[in-house]
Amino acid sequence: MRKLQKTSPMPFQRYVPFEDQITVSLPDRTWPDKTIRSAPRWCAVDLRDGNQALIDPMTPDRKHRMFELLVNMGFKEIEVGFPSASQTDYDFVRQLIEQDKIPDDVYIQVLTQAREALIERTFEAIAGAPRAIVHLYNSTSVLQREVVFKADRDGIVDIATQGARLCKKYEEAMHAASKTPTEIVYQYSPESFTGTELDFAALISDEVVEVFGATPEKPVIINLPATVEMATPNVYADSIEWMHRNLRNRESIVLSLHPHNDRGTGVAAAELGYMAGADRIEGCLFGNGERTGNVDLITLGMNLFSQGVDPELDFRDMSTIRSTVEHCNQMGVPERSPYGGDLVFTAFSGSHQDAIKKGFEHMDARASAAGTSREEITWAVPYLPIDPKDIGRSYEAVIRVNSQSGKGGVSYLLKAERGIDLPRRAQVEFSGVIQRRADDGGGEVSGDEIWQIFQDEYLPVDTTDHQWGHYRLDEVNTSSNAEGVFHMEVELQAGGRTSSQSAHANGPIAALLKILAADGVDVRLLDYTEHAMSQGGDAQAASFVELAIGERVLWGVGLDHNTTLASLQAVISAVNRALRDAAPVT
Amino acid sequence: MRKLQKTSPMPFQRYVPFEDQITVSLPDRTWPDKTIRSAPRWCAVDLRDGNQALIDPMTPDRKHRMFELLVNMGFKEIEVGFPSASQTDYDFVRQLIEQDKIPDDVYIQVLTQAREALIERTFEAIAGAPRAIVHLYNSTSVLQREVVFKADRDGIVDIATQGARLCKKYEEAMHAASKTPTEIVYQYSPESFTGTELDFAALISDEVVEVFGATPEKPVIINLPATVEMATPNVYADSIEWMHRNLRNRESIVLSLHPHNDRGTGVAAAELGYMAGADRIEGCLFGNGERTGNVDLITLGMNLFSQGVDPELDFRDMSTIRSTVEHCNQMGVPERSPYGGDLVFTAFSGSHQDAIKKGFEHMDARASAAGTSREEITWAVPYLPIDPKDIGRSYEAVIRVNSQSGKGGVSYLLKAERGIDLPRRAQVEFSGVIQRRADDGGGEVSGDEIWQIFQDEYLPVDTTDHQWGHYRLDEVNTSSNAEGVFHMEVELQAGGRTSSQSAHANGPIAALLKILAADGVDVRLLDYTEHAMSQGGDAQAASFVELAIGERVLWGVGLDHNTTLASLQAVISAVNRALRDAAPVT
Repeated sequence: MRKLQKTSPMPFQRYVPFEDQITVSLPDRTWPDKTIRSAPRWCAVDLRDGNQALIDPMTPDRKHRMFELLVNMGFKEIEVGFPSASQTDYDFVRQLIEQDKIPDDVYIQVLTQAREALIERTFEAIAGAPRAIVHLYNSTSVLQREVVFKADRDGIVDIATQGARLCKKYEEAMHAASKTPTEIVYQYSPESFTGTELDFAALISDEVVEVFGATPEKPVIINLPATVEMATPNVYADSIEWMHRNLRNRESIVLSLHPHNDRGTGVAAAELGYMAGADRIEGCLFGNGERTGNVDLITLGMNLFSQGVDPELDFRDMSTIRSTVEHCNQMGVPERSPYGGDLVFTAFSGSHQDAIKKGFEHMDARASAAGTSREEITWAVPYLPIDPKDIGRSYEAVIRVNSQSGKGGVSYLLKAERGIDLPRRAQVEFSGVIQRRADDGGGEVSGDEIWQIFQDEYLPVDTTDHQWGHYRLDEVNTSSNAEGVFHMEVELQAGGRTSSQSAHANGPIAALLKILAADGVDVRLLDYTEHAMSQGGDAQAASFVELAIGERVLWGVGLDHNTTLASLQAVISAVNRALRDAAPVT
Repeated sequence: MRKLQKTSPMPFQRYVPFEDQITVSLPDRTWPDKTIRSAPRWCAVDLRDGNQALIDPMTPDRKHRMFELLVNMGFKEIEVGFPSASQTDYDFVRQLIEQDKIPDDVYIQVLTQAREALIERTFEAIAGAPRAIVHLYNSTSVLQREVVFKADRDGIVDIATQGARLCKKYEEAMHAASKTPTEIVYQYSPESFTGTELDFAALISDEVVEVFGATPEKPVIINLPATVEMATPNVYADSIEWMHRNLRNRESIVLSLHPHNDRGTGVAAAELGYMAGADRIEGCLFGNGERTGNVDLITLGMNLFSQGVDPELDFRDMSTIRSTVEHCNQMGVPERSPYGGDLVFTAFSGSHQDAIKKGFEHMDARASAAGTSREEITWAVPYLPIDPKDIGRSYEAVIRVNSQSGKGGVSYLLKAERGIDLPRRAQVEFSGVIQRRADDGGGEVSGDEIWQIFQDEYLPVDTTDHQWGHYRLDEVNTSSNAEGVFHMEVELQAGGRTSSQSAHANGPIAALLKILAADGVDVRLLDYTEHAMSQGGDAQAASFVELAIGERVLWGVGLDHNTTLASLQAVISAVNRALRDAAPVT
């Protein structure tokens, strides 16, 4: 059996191998013999590198939520923006400071280029903060020197050292002006480090460190970005170990990594680079960031955890972390994202399921022999690198959908078996419903039971002897004309009494909300979505509305061949649920 | 500045570090000094490991499409199923063989456990194929031996060698029965290799290789799966180099890797393992597979390409590869997936955009000095590891949305600026519209121009002196009662003449389709979806319908505060588009 593959028709000859661009030679490297035994210093750059790469950058509200999440997870260094380049970043930094949102043990970090106007503005932005990291950068790669800056090495060093001097100048001015001056830590990045000759990267870093006057007590952070991943991750590790050995004043430096993921090896680069002598890692939750993203801090932290190493971060509520990130970034976390993705604790294969089952049984036997519980003994189950329970998910979910299975499994079953595509926030709500019901009964919940619970919760029960919920719509008549005038008349049952009601509004949902308001229901529409449940003209529509009813936010669901009725029934569903929950137990 | 991080409240003490489970010691490793200079032998396992991990496993049609895609990309070894465990896999293998779908230089590969009934059935499945790889596996890890098989090392070796003997037996029977027997290549996987002691993994592999009677001319594939990633990727590489050095009959073995991605380092493990002496890599397109997936073959192949190494695969039409995979797997490719994701050639940051622009200018100057074109010179542009054009995308798309920008940028702008969330297939359609319009005018297309084109294409033009399209809805009156009877009456303009029309149907869309059918339009509903364009009760709804109109499939769009009218207008939009395109040019 020969190798039968043929030469690719692609123009691979156009690309210069990394080793012909930059020399990284370290035959006596030591990092491959190292093992990671403690957490690095973490720095989350979601609010800067992450945010700048979003289609729809974060609103101030989303920024505050992200900052709070990062603080709650235990991050102590948080890059919050590039305030001299962006007014919204500037305003956000001011809000954090003026609204006293920065805990005592947290450093905010702000990025700036090495230009005087930008540096001055940066110090304005952080005035009044108890402590801050000022992060100065300029690009140092061979390519950028030639193409972008058209400058030689000395010119590039001048940009950096001049920037550092200006930082010191504005820091002194700030100290002179304030009785409670900000504690400043400096960080310097030779940006595009992976495209920079190592001797030059060390030289420019050494020069900057000297201008900043770093000492072991007051070190400077030297951050070495894989701005673009350019080689296999062992090469990045070699370059980090080279820097670790060759930086002049290593004991006065916090050596930091900032890996991107262009070659899909950002996590590996961070881990091997950390083994190679770095102290600190910058990245984003779930790997947000320019292009393929920054290194994923969730994966890095959880990889430590899975090896018995204290991650110094709190991932216990992974689903809240994930939903907050999804809200802030307005981007989903992929199904197969390590630790956080919907499918990563799901075993579809029968042989995997069988092995997992036996693994649980064995854990139980061990626990029982030791007179303790599963949670107290070391984890060892085939195909499951960690106990999903440790991050708020369930290992029983792995095999079948049950009370702990979370929104993943439940919504997949609803979609696969019933054609119902629950909106994400409705998934979260329904997952809570399932959990309560399943916990009541104990044990597993099948697809049919999920469907039964879904119907009980959201849909009118099909009985003639009693009514599902307070309200019921009987007849609906609507009229609209070309001028946009809309009128709706309904026969509405409320607590068993039927009456005719009507309203003018801009559409049927708004009209029904008006009618309900007239009946004393305090209700506002938050979201609405509707889809066909299968292909073809006789498909049913599934409609979902999210309503604010009094103090609560609730989803309602309507299924009907008639798209209008589906949406009206969704409104009724949510309102009936709110009233039902509020009713005294009889 | 001290490290301020606190101990995590998580139970990290429950986890045993990998080095306390399995000893991998290779201080004289050579792989960190290697560089990859040629492609490995590739094996795509999308139809087996990938397919078994799908929520909705592939239909026969989706399987055939995947197989065709893999063949067209240049794969010569394709694992097509586990025919003895699954009737649908069995039927698919039979179809490939009986319909003569396997090219002469392609090996299909089938997985089997080491049990006689399964082996017998496996050989039945491949009968008549010109050539095939029979892939035998059993689990060998410490944990699985103890927990699942409750057997000692000898017992596990017996399972494997007995399986190998049975394979030989059924191969001989097949040869005896057929005049044109199938060429059989054997593959053996000590499954859960990463949890297996290296000496035992080598021992069991050697025993199996001996039973199979491997020779340098007729080697056996020994495949070493990271069934679960258990350590940093350098440890996997060490274990591969150890096996490479210690397997008894190395020259008669094709050493193969099968990395999963539980720690987010599957790509790194594959690359370092290949440097460590492997010959072959198994994986899936875009990293599909159990849990966090198999290693991503797109990333591995493109990583070679970006280093000037012939990938021996064809990625020139990345968007077709991606859309085929998305169709077959019914799962999306994440935005930041290397090389294939929507956002990986997008620069949002101004400084990145500026550097990229200067990079292009410099390329042009170099090309012009050399008297040639950009495409003929080596690639060197900041922030872009490869020329997007080489995989059918555009580097001009990097900076602004333009005629080549594809559906990614266009639909993002529609969502970000207009709150319109186009369904995926509608994105594809509209992307074609944009491209035609942009090519007509030449040059770039701004967000405003996109919106103008969208309105022109899908929405009624707001003029009083002429009408947009053949049909227009004026008044709409509907009535429905509790028994599900629905009636709709409309004032419909058709070619300028207004008439009253009415229909009974199960809802407004179906009623309108009936009315249009009565007017001679051959139309069927394929899909329907609707969403609120912003939060709150006064939000507009955006409605999308996909209609089959005569021979064509077209989308229509309706925007209205009234959800019912939005959907009816979407129908009118699609029908008017069909009639407009069909009308003779005047």
